[in-house]
Amino acid sequence: MSKVHRVRFQPFGREVRVLDGQTILDAARAAGIEMNSPCGGKGTCGGCRVEITQGAPPPDGPSLERLTAEELHRNVRLACQVRVTGDMTVVIPAETLLFDQQILETGIDTAVSPEPNVRREFLRLQEPGVADQRSDHDRVLDALGDRGLSPEADVTMLRELPGALRAAGFEGTAVMVGDDLVAFEPGDTTARHFGVAVDVGTTTVVASLIELATGRQAAVASSANPQASHGDDVVSRIEHCLRGPSQLTEMQGLIVGCLNDLVGRLCDEAGLRPTDLFEAAVVGNTTMTHLLLGLPVDHIGRSPFIPAVREGLSVIARELGLAIHPRGRIYVGPTIAGYVGADTVAGILATRLHETDGLRMVIDIGTNGELVLGNRERLLACSTAAGPAFEGARIKYGMRAAAGAIDRVDIADGRLRVHAIGDVPAVGLCGTGLIEAVSACLESGIVNEMGLMQAAADLPGLSQDLAARLIHTNGETALCLVSAEQCSTGHPVLLTQRDVREVQLAKGAMFAGAAVLMAEMGVTADDLDEVLLAGAFGNYIRPERARRVGLLPPVPLEKVKFVGNAAGTGARMLLANRSQRRTAEHVSRSVHHVELSGRADFQEIFAEAMLFGA
Amino acid sequence: MSKVHRVRFQPFGREVRVLDGQTILDAARAAGIEMNSPCGGKGTCGGCRVEITQGAPPPDGPSLERLTAEELHRNVRLACQVRVTGDMTVVIPAETLLFDQQILETGIDTAVSPEPNVRREFLRLQEPGVADQRSDHDRVLDALGDRGLSPEADVTMLRELPGALRAAGFEGTAVMVGDDLVAFEPGDTTARHFGVAVDVGTTTVVASLIELATGRQAAVASSANPQASHGDDVVSRIEHCLRGPSQLTEMQGLIVGCLNDLVGRLCDEAGLRPTDLFEAAVVGNTTMTHLLLGLPVDHIGRSPFIPAVREGLSVIARELGLAIHPRGRIYVGPTIAGYVGADTVAGILATRLHETDGLRMVIDIGTNGELVLGNRERLLACSTAAGPAFEGARIKYGMRAAAGAIDRVDIADGRLRVHAIGDVPAVGLCGTGLIEAVSACLESGIVNEMGLMQAAADLPGLSQDLAARLIHTNGETALCLVSAEQCSTGHPVLLTQRDVREVQLAKGAMFAGAAVLMAEMGVTADDLDEVLLAGAFGNYIRPERARRVGLLPPVPLEKVKFVGNAAGTGARMLLANRSQRRTAEHVSRSVHHVELSGRADFQEIFAEAMLFGA
Repeated sequence: MSKVHRVRFQPFGREVRVLDGQTILDAARAAGIEMNSPCGGKGTCGGCRVEITQGAPPPDGPSLERLTAEELHRNVRLACQVRVTGDMTVVIPAETLLFDQQILETGIDTAVSPEPNVRREFLRLQEPGVADQRSDHDRVLDALGDRGLSPEADVTMLRELPGALRAAGFEGTAVMVGDDLVAFEPGDTTARHFGVAVDVGTTTVVASLIELATGRQAAVASSANPQASHGDDVVSRIEHCLRGPSQLTEMQGLIVGCLNDLVGRLCDEAGLRPTDLFEAAVVGNTTMTHLLLGLPVDHIGRSPFIPAVREGLSVIARELGLAIHPRGRIYVGPTIAGYVGADTVAGILATRLHETDGLRMVIDIGTNGELVLGNRERLLACSTAAGPAFEGARIKYGMRAAAGAIDRVDIADGRLRVHAIGDVPAVGLCGTGLIEAVSACLESGIVNEMGLMQAAADLPGLSQDLAARLIHTNGETALCLVSAEQCSTGHPVLLTQRDVREVQLAKGAMFAGAAVLMAEMGVTADDLDEVLLAGAFGNYIRPERARRVGLLPPVPLEKVKFVGNAAGTGARMLLANRSQRRTAEHVSRSVHHVELSGRADFQEIFAEAMLFGA
Repeated sequence: MSKVHRVRFQPFGREVRVLDGQTILDAARAAGIEMNSPCGGKGTCGGCRVEITQGAPPPDGPSLERLTAEELHRNVRLACQVRVTGDMTVVIPAETLLFDQQILETGIDTAVSPEPNVRREFLRLQEPGVADQRSDHDRVLDALGDRGLSPEADVTMLRELPGALRAAGFEGTAVMVGDDLVAFEPGDTTARHFGVAVDVGTTTVVASLIELATGRQAAVASSANPQASHGDDVVSRIEHCLRGPSQLTEMQGLIVGCLNDLVGRLCDEAGLRPTDLFEAAVVGNTTMTHLLLGLPVDHIGRSPFIPAVREGLSVIARELGLAIHPRGRIYVGPTIAGYVGADTVAGILATRLHETDGLRMVIDIGTNGELVLGNRERLLACSTAAGPAFEGARIKYGMRAAAGAIDRVDIADGRLRVHAIGDVPAVGLCGTGLIEAVSACLESGIVNEMGLMQAAADLPGLSQDLAARLIHTNGETALCLVSAEQCSTGHPVLLTQRDVREVQLAKGAMFAGAAVLMAEMGVTADDLDEVLLAGAFGNYIRPERARRVGLLPPVPLEKVKFVGNAAGTGARMLLANRSQRRTAEHVSRSVHHVELSGRADFQEIFAEAMLFGA
C-alpha cells in the first residue's frame, strides 16, 4: 500500500495529500498552485525553486548543481526534483509563481465591419392547429425562410425545440451560428449579442468579450496559461503529451478550464450568462490550438514537424467542454505550419500584410519567434527557435515579466541604474531587462562583438561604478546589476557570460530568420518599408535596444512600429466578421512557409547572426 | 429500507431480484424477457397473463375482471397488475411472450442503381518530409481533391488521422459518408462496403445488410420491437414517455439496443465487424423515428398531433449509441405528419406512387392504418386509428401472429375448419384469423350487415356444425372456433359479438380513410387502377376476405396487389441510392396530409363504413 503524505504550501496555507514519491511540483499542481517550470520538470532550468521549511530532504543531483550553497543551507530545493517521502511545509517564493504578469491585452485597432457568424432573429410564429400541422422544425424554418435564412438543426436542437417553442408561446428569438439553428429563446433577445475572441499564448491567454452588432470590445480578461506547469515552451508541452494519451487530455482540460474561467469573468463583468454566448474565435500557435482541440502534437514535435490540420475548424462547444452555450461554436483559425500558427495568420489579418503594397516584415519575438515578410503579391513566413531566454529561462537570474523583474537598464554618467516592473526592488531579469542589460554592455564595451564579456582590467576607460560591478564568480565573468545586499532575496542579480551567450543564441535565431526570409524574397533590409514588432514582448522593448542587440534587421528606427497583440486583434476580426475567415483560409494556404532546418546554409547564416554588430 | 424479493421466471430458469412493490411485468423486463403488453400495463387487455406457481397473491380488481374462474384457480394473474411482495415463481405461457412471430422480411423488389452515400477511396500518399510539410489533413484532402472529392473532417477524425496515416504507412482507404471524411483504414478496403437498411415497426424491426456497390441484400435479420413491453400501440408508448424524461431515454435505449443486436447478427452472418458499417438508413412511423432519435413525442400524442421534425435527418452514430462505426451516420427518412411517417414515404418510393400515371391507393393495415392515394400529379395521405384488433388485442382470445394463432377459417360442406400458424393446435386468434372468422360469419349469415351475431334459432338453414358452435356465454353470442376440450390451454377459442364490434371499428376506420381520400381527390373506387396492400399483415390476408369484411375499397380482386414490406424496400432504396433521399424529401413535402379528425363529416362517413356491405 502506498503511503500518503501531507504537503502544506505557504504563503497560501493550502494543504494537499499526495502519494509517496510524487514531486513537490505534482503536489503544487494538485493544490491548484501554478508554478514556474520553464524546463517542464527536468531539473535543468532552476525555475521552480521552493523553500522547504519542514521535512526537507538532503539535496540531490540537480539541486546541488543549480542552487548556491546559501540556498541549499536555507533548504531551497527544486520542486520538480524533490520527491515527497514525508509530511512537508513548502514556501513558494513570489518569483516561482506564475502570477502578476504583465499581460498585453490590447492590440492595434483594425476596424472591420460587423458581419458576425451568429445571427439572432425574433419570430412571432403561428400556433399549430388541425389546419396547420407543420412540424415544430418546419414552423421555425418557414419563418426564417421568409427572411432568406435556411439553417439546419441537429438532433439535440430538435429534442429541445418542441418544449422551447411552447415555453415561449411561439414568440421568441431563433439563434443561428453559421448555417445551424442552435437555440430558440423566449422573447426578443436580439440585443443580447456577444461573442468571445481568444488569443491562446504559450504563456498568456487573453480573451475579449465582443458586442457582435458593433464589433466593440465590451470587456477583456487574461490569465496565465495553466499548461505552463508542464513546461514553458511548446516543446516541453509536446514532450509531456508524448508520455501518453491521458497527458493530451490533461493539457486540453487545463486550457479549456482556463478559457471557461475567462468566459466566466467576462460574463460577470458584462452581466451575461455564459450560455448567452454562441461563439468563440480562437487563435494561438499551432501547438496551442492543437492542444485546445485535443489533436495529437506528436508529429509537430519532431522533423518534419507535421501538424494534424492546417484548416480553420468550427467545433461544437459541448464537444470541447467549453462553457458557452452547449451548441455554440469554437472557431479555431487556420495555421501555416507546425510552428507558424493561427496567431501568425491573425497577425497578418490585423496588420493587413496580405493587402499591403510596400514590403513589410512582422516579427513576433518569443520562445518561438515567427517572422512574416511580404505584401499582397507574396508572403513568406518562418519560425525560429529563439529559446526561452526572452521568457527569463536559462538565464542565471532570469524570471518572467512579473513584479520585481528588471525591465530597464540605463548607464548615465558612468553609473548603471535599473528599473523593475511594479516599481519594487529588483529580484531578477525578465526578457526585456536582459536585452537592456546586454545592450548597455555593448554600448559601454563590456561585451564585445564576439559576445565576450571583458574583464575590468582590459577596459581602461570604464567608469568606477561599472568596473566595480564587473566580477568573476563561479568561473565566469558577470556584471552585477543589483548586489545581494540590495536584494530582498538575499542573492544578487547578475548578468553572466553564459546569459550573454543565451542572448546571442536567441537574437541570432531571430536575425537569421529575418535574413533567410529576405534572401528568399531577394531583398535586403534597405528594401523594407516597415518592421512591425508584435507580441507582448515587443511592446515593452525599446527599439533602439533591440536593434543594438541585433534582434531586428538594420532599418532606421522610424521604420519600426509596434503593433502590440496583433494576434488578439486578428482573433477579434475573425469573431466579428465571418468573411475574414475566408480571408484567413486564403492567407493560410497562400503563405509560403520557409523551413529553416531544411536549408543547407542556415547554420552558416545563424553563426554570423550571433555576432553583435557595431 | 425497501425489501428485495426474488422472482424466478419459468420456463427460462431466470431469476431476478426486485424491490418490494414492483410488478411482475417490471421484473420480467429486468430479467430481459419480452412480454406481451398491448395496453401498456393498464390491466385492460389481459395480454400479459402469467401463472404464479409459487407465492401467488389473492386476485385483485383487473385480474378478477379479465380472467376466468378456472384461470384464477390456476393462479393465473395479469403480470402488469401483480405487485411483488415476496419471493415468487412465475411461468410465462408461450402466448404471452413476444416471440416466434411471423415477420415479413422481404418486400417488393424495386431496383435502384447503386449510388451510395458512403464512399471508399484507396490512396497511396506521399510521405511527409521537410520539403513537403503539408498537414496530415491536407495530405489526404489533396489526394481526394484529385478525384473531385472535398470532404470535411470533424475534430474526432482529426484526432485519429495522424496515427491512422502512420499506422497505414500512408497507404490506406479513406472512407467518406456524405460530405464527411470519417475514417482512414490501412490497406485497400474498398470491397468492404456495406450498410444497413432498417424498418422500425411498432411491433417488428427488420434490418437488411446491403452491399453498397451493388445494392444486393447480403443478409436480413428481424426482431420484435422491445418497446412493446410498454404498450403495443404508439399511443401507449407516447403515454409512457409522458411520465418523464427518463422514460423517453429508456424507450430510445430499447430501440437502439434492438438495432445493435440486429447489426451484430447481420455482421456475424456476413463476417464483418460492426465498425465496418458506416451508414444505416432507417424508416418507421413518426413516433418510432422520434423515439429512436430521442425526440419528444408529447405533441404527437394529442391534437393537433405535431411532430418535432418532418425532414430527414442524418445523425452521427456515436451520438445515438448505435454500434456501427462511431463516426458513421444514421439517416432517418422524412415523415409526412404525426401519424404518417417515414415508413409511408418509403412505401411511396418502393411502389413508385409518385411516378405513376394511373390512380393507385396504398393501404398499410395496422393499429394505425396509413393510406396514400394518387399519382405523379397529386398525392393524398391519411392515417386512421384502426385500433389494435388486427394485432390481436382487445379481442377475447386475440393473440399476435405467433405459433398457435388461427390464420385461416374456412367453411366447407357446412363444416368449419381452422388452421393455426406453425401447424400446431390453435390457442387464439390473430388479426388475419379474425378477418377470416368474421368473413366466414358474413358468408354464412351468422353475422348480418349491421354486425349483429344471430342466434342459431334465427338461422334455419345453418348446418348442424355451425349451429352447435353458436353459443351464448357471458351475456353475449359467440361462435366457438375451437372447443376447450380441443385446446391445450384449457379454454376455448371463441369469436364473440364484442370481437365482431372491434372488427367493425377497425375496418370502418380503414374504409372511412379510403372514402375520405377518394372524396378529397374527387374519385370513386371505380377510378382506382390498383389497390396495393402493404405491411406484414397484408401479406397473409386473403384479398377476397379483406374485401368481404370491407377492409378494402370495392374493386375487382385483380386490382388488388401485395407489395409486402414496402417500407423496408424503401429503406433499402434510401440506403443504396443517395438521390432517393432528395426524392423522399420532395415526396415528404408534397404529399397533402388529410387530417381525418379535422373533418366535420368524418363521424358520419365512419358510421356508414362500419356496416358490412353485401
